[in-house]
Amino acid sequence: MTVGVCYFPEHWDESTWEGAVERMAEAGIETVRLGEFAWGRLEPAREEFDFAWLDTVLDLLADHDREALLCTPTATPPKWLVDERPSVRRVAEDGTVEGYGSRREYCFNSTAYRAETERVVSRLAERYANRDVVVGWQIDNEYGCHGTVRCYCDECAEAFRTFLREHYDDAATLNEAWGTAFWSQQYDSIDAVEPPRPTPSAHHPSLLLDYARFASRSVVKYNALQAALLREANDGWTLTHNTMGQFEELDLHALGETVDFLSWDSYPTGFVQTREDEPATVDELRAGDPDELALNHALCRGATTEPFWVMEQQPGDINWSPTNPQPGEGAMSLWALHATGHGADTVVYFRWRACSQGQEQYHSGLLNHAGQPDRGYDDATVAADDIRALPSLPQPEASVAVLHDYENAWALREQPHAPDFHYWTHLRTYFDALQARGVTVDIRHPADSLDGYDAAVAPTLYLVSDGRADHLESYVRDGGTLLLTVRAGFKTPHNRVHETPRPGPLRSLVGATVTEHETIPDTVDTTVHYRGESYDYRTWGEWLESEGARIVGTYPDGAGSGSAAITIHEVGEGAVTYVGVWPERRLADTVCTDLLSRAGVPHRDEPLPDGVRVAQRGDHCFVTNFTSDRVRVDRLSGDPVVGRTPLGGYDYLVGRGDATELGVAATDLPD
Amino acid sequence: MTVGVCYFPEHWDESTWEGAVERMAEAGIETVRLGEFAWGRLEPAREEFDFAWLDTVLDLLADHDREALLCTPTATPPKWLVDERPSVRRVAEDGTVEGYGSRREYCFNSTAYRAETERVVSRLAERYANRDVVVGWQIDNEYGCHGTVRCYCDECAEAFRTFLREHYDDAATLNEAWGTAFWSQQYDSIDAVEPPRPTPSAHHPSLLLDYARFASRSVVKYNALQAALLREANDGWTLTHNTMGQFEELDLHALGETVDFLSWDSYPTGFVQTREDEPATVDELRAGDPDELALNHALCRGATTEPFWVMEQQPGDINWSPTNPQPGEGAMSLWALHATGHGADTVVYFRWRACSQGQEQYHSGLLNHAGQPDRGYDDATVAADDIRALPSLPQPEASVAVLHDYENAWALREQPHAPDFHYWTHLRTYFDALQARGVTVDIRHPADSLDGYDAAVAPTLYLVSDGRADHLESYVRDGGTLLLTVRAGFKTPHNRVHETPRPGPLRSLVGATVTEHETIPDTVDTTVHYRGESYDYRTWGEWLESEGARIVGTYPDGAGSGSAAITIHEVGEGAVTYVGVWPERRLADTVCTDLLSRAGVPHRDEPLPDGVRVAQRGDHCFVTNFTSDRVRVDRLSGDPVVGRTPLGGYDYLVGRGDATELGVAATDLPD
Amino acid sequence: MTVGVCYFPEHWDESTWEGAVERMAEAGIETVRLGEFAWGRLEPAREEFDFAWLDTVLDLLADHDREALLCTPTATPPKWLVDERPSVRRVAEDGTVEGYGSRREYCFNSTAYRAETERVVSRLAERYANRDVVVGWQIDNEYGCHGTVRCYCDECAEAFRTFLREHYDDAATLNEAWGTAFWSQQYDSIDAVEPPRPTPSAHHPSLLLDYARFASRSVVKYNALQAALLREANDGWTLTHNTMGQFEELDLHALGETVDFLSWDSYPTGFVQTREDEPATVDELRAGDPDELALNHALCRGATTEPFWVMEQQPGDINWSPTNPQPGEGAMSLWALHATGHGADTVVYFRWRACSQGQEQYHSGLLNHAGQPDRGYDDATVAADDIRALPSLPQPEASVAVLHDYENAWALREQPHAPDFHYWTHLRTYFDALQARGVTVDIRHPADSLDGYDAAVAPTLYLVSDGRADHLESYVRDGGTLLLTVRAGFKTPHNRVHETPRPGPLRSLVGATVTEHETIPDTVDTTVHYRGESYDYRTWGEWLESEGARIVGTYPDGAGSGSAAITIHEVGEGAVTYVGVWPERRLADTVCTDLLSRAGVPHRDEPLPDGVRVAQRGDHCFVTNFTSDRVRVDRLSGDPVVGRTPLGGYDYLVGRGDATELGVAATDLPD
Repeated sequence: MTVGVCYFPEHWDESTWEGAVERMAEAGIETVRLGEFAWGRLEPAREEFDFAWLDTVLDLLADHDREALLCTPTATPPKWLVDERPSVRRVAEDGTVEGYGSRREYCFNSTAYRAETERVVSRLAERYANRDVVVGWQIDNEYGCHGTVRCYCDECAEAFRTFLREHYDDAATLNEAWGTAFWSQQYDSIDAVEPPRPTPSAHHPSLLLDYARFASRSVVKYNALQAALLREANDGWTLTHNTMGQFEELDLHALGETVDFLSWDSYPTGFVQTREDEPATVDELRAGDPDELALNHALCRGATTEPFWVMEQQPGDINWSPTNPQPGEGAMSLWALHATGHGADTVVYFRWRACSQGQEQYHSGLLNHAGQPDRGYDDATVAADDIRALPSLPQPEASVAVLHDYENAWALREQPHAPDFHYWTHLRTYFDALQARGVTVDIRHPADSLDGYDAAVAPTLYLVSDGRADHLESYVRDGGTLLLTVRAGFKTPHNRVHETPRPGPLRSLVGATVTEHETIPDTVDTTVHYRGESYDYRTWGEWLESEGARIVGTYPDGAGSGSAAITIHEVGEGAVTYVGVWPERRLADTVCTDLLSRAGVPHRDEPLPDGVRVAQRGDHCFVTNFTSDRVRVDRLSGDPVVGRTPLGGYDYLVGRGDATELGVAATDLPD
Repeated sequence: MTVGVCYFPEHWDESTWEGAVERMAEAGIETVRLGEFAWGRLEPAREEFDFAWLDTVLDLLADHDREALLCTPTATPPKWLVDERPSVRRVAEDGTVEGYGSRREYCFNSTAYRAETERVVSRLAERYANRDVVVGWQIDNEYGCHGTVRCYCDECAEAFRTFLREHYDDAATLNEAWGTAFWSQQYDSIDAVEPPRPTPSAHHPSLLLDYARFASRSVVKYNALQAALLREANDGWTLTHNTMGQFEELDLHALGETVDFLSWDSYPTGFVQTREDEPATVDELRAGDPDELALNHALCRGATTEPFWVMEQQPGDINWSPTNPQPGEGAMSLWALHATGHGADTVVYFRWRACSQGQEQYHSGLLNHAGQPDRGYDDATVAADDIRALPSLPQPEASVAVLHDYENAWALREQPHAPDFHYWTHLRTYFDALQARGVTVDIRHPADSLDGYDAAVAPTLYLVSDGRADHLESYVRDGGTLLLTVRAGFKTPHNRVHETPRPGPLRSLVGATVTEHETIPDTVDTTVHYRGESYDYRTWGEWLESEGARIVGTYPDGAGSGSAAITIHEVGEGAVTYVGVWPERRLADTVCTDLLSRAGVPHRDEPLPDGVRVAQRGDHCFVTNFTSDRVRVDRLSGDPVVGRTPLGGYDYLVGRGDATELGVAATDLPD
Repeated sequence: MTVGVCYFPEHWDESTWEGAVERMAEAGIETVRLGEFAWGRLEPAREEFDFAWLDTVLDLLADHDREALLCTPTATPPKWLVDERPSVRRVAEDGTVEGYGSRREYCFNSTAYRAETERVVSRLAERYANRDVVVGWQIDNEYGCHGTVRCYCDECAEAFRTFLREHYDDAATLNEAWGTAFWSQQYDSIDAVEPPRPTPSAHHPSLLLDYARFASRSVVKYNALQAALLREANDGWTLTHNTMGQFEELDLHALGETVDFLSWDSYPTGFVQTREDEPATVDELRAGDPDELALNHALCRGATTEPFWVMEQQPGDINWSPTNPQPGEGAMSLWALHATGHGADTVVYFRWRACSQGQEQYHSGLLNHAGQPDRGYDDATVAADDIRALPSLPQPEASVAVLHDYENAWALREQPHAPDFHYWTHLRTYFDALQARGVTVDIRHPADSLDGYDAAVAPTLYLVSDGRADHLESYVRDGGTLLLTVRAGFKTPHNRVHETPRPGPLRSLVGATVTEHETIPDTVDTTVHYRGESYDYRTWGEWLESEGARIVGTYPDGAGSGSAAITIHEVGEGAVTYVGVWPERRLADTVCTDLLSRAGVPHRDEPLPDGVRVAQRGDHCFVTNFTSDRVRVDRLSGDPVVGRTPLGGYDYLVGRGDATELGVAATDLPD
């Protein structure tokens, strides 16, 4: 568990390098990420490689006993390359060919770009295969940033057809699987299928889903191409890719299979301003939303067996969110400790020094443009010290799994059926409720083994085959406690609707059918009764009819008056809760708490205060305060290992204890 | 007066067909629409026609004594056709050529598409010319859906020039008619004129209006092409096209001349969410807006002499509106009876069974995806029973005409002069006021004979020639009572401004001139005095000076303080009211009531409650309740023929009586 | 000081011309603008020129002792020209080639268009070189209207590279100046640089700034081309271009160097509806915002030594703003006198008669469409009379300069860092505060000599070289009083960030450093203390550390609690105020007042009422009332020369007095 930094020596005069590395060492920074976006510096003209500058910096790092994580520079092809091989350029949905001048202009299926990638990666791998200071590689950078996962060029069109041929025997099979009789969309050959380019109305949902799969797989294959070359050069290297927060076009489960660990880029004060839900509170503008971060930590943690990293940790104010406030005092160390509490092995600050040139001039660094320590420098030093003060800790152990499949997000994005039906926001309703109860949660794919999980929560398990239904039924029958929600089982994996009563293959498991659904504008009041209490719900409601399940929620009024809304069905040793509404927060808390109790999962008696969260690694608890209030912590075993109680605003402590039992409360009392 | 259903056997296994037809018969469904969008199934490869499936279904319908209305499948060309003849594709205003993958990808002026259309329609017509079960055809589907009336391809460019040559002798005539001296827009030849493609600022309004005319006429000509082929095969067939609600790019008056009757597709809960005015109330989300439906009924009813149909009646929840609530209990039968009250001959539910495949998966049917009766099935059965219980009734008879010309809508769309000046919303201000007073209204073209109408209301009669002014003046002189509103007579039919005092050719008729107009943001309070009372107005105000007319409305304050706002001018045996503001609802009611009284048109003493409406066919009244309140009906002659009083929420009754005299009131009393 | 009118005889029958000119003379109109947009009439086919109509009108003007200002017609190439030479068409950023049909379709760097321009301008110049009635020319019309300054065609690409070659020795120099190591954006040759066409993320800020410079310079060069041809024909002609209000893509300082005077087109009721800030008040909808007009007057006045004109003065209601209200009674003369007070030599109403044809049909004229005097005619006559009643007056003399550089606006537009950081709105915060204190202000370029100015206010002086910093330091050292604001000195002229502590080269002058900045959504309360009082601020805050400056403003709370926010530094004989927040209005007033006091600049004791303003020319004061309230004026020397006190709504007076000492107050008293 260490702290690192992203360093771009190529942006600064050589004379500054040694001082920089010395200063990093002083600050307690162990790992330095290098070489990202540096293709233009590494190969200023075709086959004229210049490694000297990088060699020098690596020497300096080795001299100062630091580790280097190198990056392949493929996110930014140099101008000469794009000019020589214009076919590398991505084509947008509307046919616009990417011009040059930012990054990620390339197509993942471009033959030319794949060849160029092989060329440069091989040369770099070969060059550094024997440098001990290089512990591994970040491959490319933030796949899909700026909406670039999906390309619509002719090479992609051909690759898409190849993809389809791998999944469907012939056009007849495809026609049947998709259901192309609708609107005369039959294909007489797979050769005739095209990417979803502009057309008067919506594209066929089955084609759209397969295009989403194809595009994600194209990225994964591109990543695998690079990984193979690097492993060939040195199979001791650890490989990763730095993903983006809650980005949905790329399947991280699949990407995880091509690397040793996943990392992600954490910008808490930006994320809260771009989420598809409520505006950010002042505390969120200053420190972000801990559950949003926790979800991304869990996504990465679940995707590989090696511990994840935060590859870019916000170092101060940033450049890209709608407004760019200064983080709260201490927030930059809070984030590092929060990540560590959720299992991060290394937290790498982005970037060492604010850059005087180019598109990210307004992004702060640990040093400012003038090279002076900025707010982040102080915080990073504190974080490095505090993390060093911790013993070696095991990864978080979860007894609850939240089931997540990117394919559901892709399918729902195309047919949300309401302007505010957003996959992640709905998932967060349940995830956040669990966080507030102090429960450690893993994110798992619904096809994964659920052995060892006492409870599983599956928000909008939308695409469901018989096999997947069987898998879940076995889990429940063997004693598992499962929560299913709206839209579960509506579709086949080909994005057709099941022609059996809803929830399709899950019907017998749920012990109820969904007779109707509706979406509702937020101007309409909507109420559900659950176990004697009245709650609001939002966006989506289903009318249920029990076929054996116990009815625990009903509609007291409105168009569905008297219908069931929430049911529980005992199956074998376990039970399934079906929630036919998008619950308000209080209802989500109650439903989740009931689920945890039924599953015997320890959880806190009351929800934690907003913005205050706990995490457990082994016998150590991390208490993190994302608010400006002071927070008193009781019932630790002994003194805190790091920090003290009460916590100040944007503060944290680590100590021995049980996250579900600690006393944690905002306080006005003096220290 | 019957009920029908849209059936897509090609989406389901052949084994289900017989059961489906049996069930339709049980439900009382008389008419089945078939074949829409089925080109891909009918001709899976060029000239390899497969009629067997359709033959089978027609046999089943004949066996069960049902009627079939077939559809030409031209709204959805198969992929092989578009690939073979790429010139069929529509080109958007910005030059984007339509990709493949939804529907309506074609250009109405494509030589290739017209040839393909002739080919397939001829084959279908020939095949079914002698099948008695086939009573007629729906030609294509929803022309203009997804904004596809106007195409900007080179074939359209040439066809536009041909259109212009038919209307203008030469470039000099066109230059004079349009007024191209402005901004050097003169043409030295009609060959030089182009469609209105992207340009830095707005296009010339006269060109835009002619392009709108040309595009509408292109659709009408395309429809006539199909109609001629069908009539040639069997001149006993009844022909129609299913238009969309309040769609303005296509002139339904002109389209009506190419078919036997018009039909339209009625989705009440969707329309209220997409109108350009106020958000929908909860009752409207559940049942729609009866006046919006009535206007579309009247539009279709007025366009042909044969009675209109509702070709697609919403069967439950739908897929395409922003949110998709469940209709209120009973709404699906309410809509059918409301349509019948306004003269619909047949109300066809869309669709039989919810479709498991393609873009409309989230659209309900009378049966659900699993083939079970859904809410709409029950309602459709009730509607079929109730309609069967009625005697044969004459069409509604109106003594008031609302004058409507698509060309005014087209011209105003391009120069609204205020963000909220919307042609239809303004027309609805008057139309709704008349509906609330229980008055039967026809929609007529301003060039139509007005014989037999005691009053005529002409909202924004914008483009006015001397001939049209004379026509209206004759109407008034002979005793007609006419209401003119803002922007009347401002433009020539070429969309130039008249160079005479406003309202141009209508000046002597109105007996007043418009000295100024202004548009006003809704943040500014605006008041007008009318006959001693104070009212608000919105969006548009004109300052009038009497030249003989009586001033009945004035501005008490604001920039136009003291000017006249509303005038009445007696001319010959009749009178003209000119309303120089966009009135609030109460003022529209008062102005219309005064007009009706002057014209001797019977009307209700008080406006009907919101959402409750009456319609008259012969001596039968239809009372329809689009609200969740109960409604008591008094003063019927005898017991209701259908329904009972008080009406429940979303309920109706039919009985003998006079729609302007019935007692109709919301009630809290017990039944 | 006179009144003029824009006249388009080519839109009307020849028989009307003489009457029109007579009527102009009666109305007191001295100057008539002619020939704008008339290329199609002047040259209906290539090399077939028709000057007869224009000759006739010029004869009529000469006969009636009026002056003509001719226009080159290049804003509207005729259709035959564009068809013959399609390369003249502008290409939009996304690659769309302009279609034909409005105006400004051309590219400023088109070789073909420049040749055609030379051809037509030469012919016109030659034709009228010896006509005394022609006093000068307006070149083209409203460069940049409809977003047309920047073109992305291949000729522009090549011209951009030529521009770069003039400014950078080679690619290495450019790479260093811009900083292209970021994201591998190095160029190996200037030949490889392209315009900023579509790319996944933002373009390089240094490229964007140079493209903005290049595009502005392209316009200036195009204007210079025309000016040279006209001067060659008759060097006694006065030349101008009519710019648009607060338009930022074109550098008016540079444009001013190519003409004799600048003019601008003033549409007060439209501007207030399109500004990027608060919605317009009712008074503003009726009369506009005097400070917005004053700023444009000052911009034009400062750009040349000859007095500026208002070339298009709103004559009544207009066609292009969101809503188009009637101006308040008298507003059309108020605007003319307000402009005269700010130094306008001639105020030209647009247009003589409302046009029946084309895109501006809804724009009023002094006469209406029917040729009758409209509201503007009466006001123009009054204005002409009142202006004639004035003695010859010197230009306004300012002792305060507001420093403005278009390059700062360009750079900030690309990196606003907050959705509401708008260059002009920020500048207006200070400009308006000075107007409210009755201070005459010049707009100067920061590189201009500041001799004679007691104070200088430099809002967001963003791009600062050492030379510019020295220039300002000298000004202060020699006794000048300078106000600097947020973001000052952040960037080099190449749009890189200075690698020294902020405010970069201004640091020693300011005597403080900016340690942090942040942007803040307007949902967050933000407070600053200044000299013992508490004020709000908005959008942007900086945390300052004094290095010798006196701290006069601090943050009492929030993330920057305790930091300095506003400082004053005495340097040599002068002093510099640095304002690290975007102040609310009250704070801007206080800061400016303190500045004026320190500089010894006379100013009013209290701010003027909103919408009431004073202007000084020599010993004459202009008091203008843009509100509907009555305003009493005291302390004039003698009776008003024009007007009387109290002023009515939308009224003015001119009299002898001192603008900073007059009594000016809204009143309820009787006259």
